[in-house]
Amino acid sequence: MSKQALPVLAAADGCRTTLTAPLDADTAATLAIGFKALADPVRLRLLSLIASAGGEEVCVCELTPAFELSQPTISHHLKVLRESGLLTSQRRGTWVYYRVVPQMLQQLSRVLALDS
Amino acid sequence: MSKQALPVLAAADGCRTTLTAPLDADTAATLAIGFKALADPVRLRLLSLIASAGGEEVCVCELTPAFELSQPTISHHLKVLRESGLLTSQRRGTWVYYRVVPQMLQQLSRVLALDS
Repeated sequence: MSKQALPVLAAADGCRTTLTAPLDADTAATLAIGFKALADPVRLRLLSLIASAGGEEVCVCELTPAFELSQPTISHHLKVLRESGLLTSQRRGTWVYYRVVPQMLQQLSRVLALDS
Repeated sequence: MSKQALPVLAAADGCRTTLTAPLDADTAATLAIGFKALADPVRLRLLSLIASAGGEEVCVCELTPAFELSQPTISHHLKVLRESGLLTSQRRGTWVYYRVVPQMLQQLSRVLALDS
């Protein structure tokens, strides 16, 4: 698996950050990167297709047919998800394979969980 | 309390939607509205200040001093949060008071929780 940056996990103090205490500016800026990656319907659908594989990797060739969008557009959205740390990727031959980073999703989930 | 639209809760089938199954286009579009509201550091900080009040309402006059931003800018960000359904508001006299909608935060949290 290729190495990917995990900016949210690295800068926002792991799983302990929630909205139940005032966020400092740096933590808020870092978390906003993650939420911005999620703030697009196509990216949410791509992420759900990959997350539905239950931890297995998914070929970009399996993702593109689900959308009426060009391959470069799909690749752009996957790049945003990868750069935010929500996905990792590995190129093998013609295709790129994507896998969800569950820790990143869990962190963003916990930030919003008021009872945690 | 003034009535506010709850677009995410209304359209995304409550708390049962998660990324562990492929999202349809309509649900993804609705959820993206919520994540877009969270995709800004100032809005995340505002939301954390209000959520820190533990369900109590918070006067805009208590929020503005925490930022080096103009009152109209703060009000714009609060409007985005309110229109996404994450906050409700009530005007009393000079000031507007804001309260978190916990169901909305919980819904967005659960969408990202892979083990739910």
